[in-house]
Amino acid sequence: MPPPDVFVAETSFHVRYAETDAMGIIHHASYIIYFEEGRSSYARQRGASYADFERQGFVLAVTEIHARYVKAVRYDQRITVRSWLAEIKSRTVTFEYEIVDAETGDLFVTGHSKHICLNSKGQISILPENWRGWTLS
Amino acid sequence: MPPPDVFVAETSFHVRYAETDAMGIIHHASYIIYFEEGRSSYARQRGASYADFERQGFVLAVTEIHARYVKAVRYDQRITVRSWLAEIKSRTVTFEYEIVDAETGDLFVTGHSKHICLNSKGQISILPENWRGWTLS
Amino acid sequence: MPPPDVFVAETSFHVRYAETDAMGIIHHASYIIYFEEGRSSYARQRGASYADFERQGFVLAVTEIHARYVKAVRYDQRITVRSWLAEIKSRTVTFEYEIVDAETGDLFVTGHSKHICLNSKGQISILPENWRGWTLS
Amino acid sequence: MPPPDVFVAETSFHVRYAETDAMGIIHHASYIIYFEEGRSSYARQRGASYADFERQGFVLAVTEIHARYVKAVRYDQRITVRSWLAEIKSRTVTFEYEIVDAETGDLFVTGHSKHICLNSKGQISILPENWRGWTLS
Repeated sequence: MPPPDVFVAETSFHVRYAETDAMGIIHHASYIIYFEEGRSSYARQRGASYADFERQGFVLAVTEIHARYVKAVRYDQRITVRSWLAEIKSRTVTFEYEIVDAETGDLFVTGHSKHICLNSKGQISILPENWRGWTLS
Repeated sequence: MPPPDVFVAETSFHVRYAETDAMGIIHHASYIIYFEEGRSSYARQRGASYADFERQGFVLAVTEIHARYVKAVRYDQRITVRSWLAEIKSRTVTFEYEIVDAETGDLFVTGHSKHICLNSKGQISILPENWRGWTLS
Repeated sequence: MPPPDVFVAETSFHVRYAETDAMGIIHHASYIIYFEEGRSSYARQRGASYADFERQGFVLAVTEIHARYVKAVRYDQRITVRSWLAEIKSRTVTFEYEIVDAETGDLFVTGHSKHICLNSKGQISILPENWRGWTLS
Repeated sequence: MPPPDVFVAETSFHVRYAETDAMGIIHHASYIIYFEEGRSSYARQRGASYADFERQGFVLAVTEIHARYVKAVRYDQRITVRSWLAEIKSRTVTFEYEIVDAETGDLFVTGHSKHICLNSKGQISILPENWRGWTLS
C-alpha cells in the first residue's frame, strides 16, 4: 500500500485477450508493461509526460524490476494500476506499484522499478528540471 | 508454397509460452512477429542484415500485412518460417511467408507483407544498393 | 470508413511505450492486438462479451487478418479503434476496423479479420444464440 | 554467476525487432520472456518439458520476478540465456538467470523467478515426480 501523503496516480483499463496465456490467466510479463503504463500515467498526471522527457533529450533507463504475484487476473477484468514515487534523487527514480481489481479492490500484483536518467549519448545525467522538482507527495 | 527457383530463407525455433493465449494456442498476432523474424533471417542469409539497412540511414516501413491461419500451434512445438521475395522494386518490397511444423512439415500459417523504404526524414527513398541488387532467386 | 447504418463500436486509449519499436513508432503487430481490443469492445457494447462467449463453451478462432498501414503512431498518442461487423453467418464472422487519432481523427490503419466458431472439441460450430442474432446495424 | 557444480541450461537466439522500443534497445519486459525461455530450455534439457508438466495436470505459477539490467541489448544481437535451479522444495521452485552476449560473453541482465505448483483446481500441490527428483547439479 502507498504510504500516507504520497501522490498516487491511478489508471484503469480492461486487460487484453492477447495478454492471457495457456494457463487462462494474464501472463506474468504483462504486469511489467502495466507498471510502465502506471509510470506513463503518473508523469501525465503531474504535468510532465514521458514523451516530453524524451523530447528534452533524455531517456529513463530501467535498472531493476521486481514484481510479486498475489492473485491471477483473467480476460475481461478491469484493473487499476496505482503508481507512486518511492524515491527521487538527482539522477535516479524509484516507482512503486499496486495492481488491484478496478471493481472490488482485490490485490493482484505489487512491485517496484528503478531507473536512471541518461542523455542522448548514453551518459548518466541529472533529471530534467520539471521531473527533478517532484516531491513524493 | 514458394514458386520454383526462388531463394527461400528458413529459420526454425520453439514457440514461446508467453505467445500462447487462453485458447491454449499461439495468439494470432505472434505470427506477424514470426514473419518479421523470417524477414530478418532472409536478410542475414543474403548477407545484408536489416541492422545494416538501418545503419545506412533507412527504415523499411510496413505498409500491409496479410495472414491466413490454417492450423493452430501449441506451446513447445518447433516451427519453421520460410520467407521469400515476391516482388522487389526500386522503393518497395513484398515478402511472402509460410510457417510449418519443423518436424512434420504441416502447414500452420501463410501470409505476406509489403514494405516501403524511407530515409531518416521519413521520405520515400530508393532501397540501399545491397538490397536493390537482390533478385527473387 | 464504416458503411452508413452499421453499428460501430469505439474504444479509445493511449498507446504504450512497450508497443513502440526502434523506428520510434508503434510496431505493426501491435495494431493486430488493437483490432482484438476493438472486437472485445464491440461485443461488450452489444451486451454479449467475448468472456461469456467462451463461458458458453465456444472459441472464436481467427482465420484471416489483414491490415493496411497509412500513417505511423508515436508514443503518448491517443487512438480510437472503430470496429464493425462486415458479415455474420451461422458459423463465421468478419469484422472491419479503422484506427484513427483520438484527437484529430487522422487515419492510421485499416483492416479486417475473419473468424470461425469452434466448440470445445475444436469442431466448427454454430455461433451462440446471443451472437447469432446480431444484425450489422 | 551460477554457483559451481550447478546444472546450467543454455539457449541462444537473436533478439527480435518487435522486442525493441523507441529507445532503440530491447524493451525491459522482453527479458522476463527470455527468462521463461530459459526455464523452458532447462526443463527440456533435463528431459521433463514444461508441456509434459501441464499434461500431468499441473501449472507452475509465477509468484515473484526480479531482474537487474546491466547493459542494453540492440536488434540483431545474439544472446545466451543461462538458467539454473537456485532452490527446489516439494511445492516451490526458484530459478536464477543470466543473459549474456552470445559472442563476447558480456553480461546484460541477471534475475530470478519463484514459482509454486498448482493443480487443475488451482490448489497448491506437490511437484510432479519427474521434477521433484531434480537436484541442483
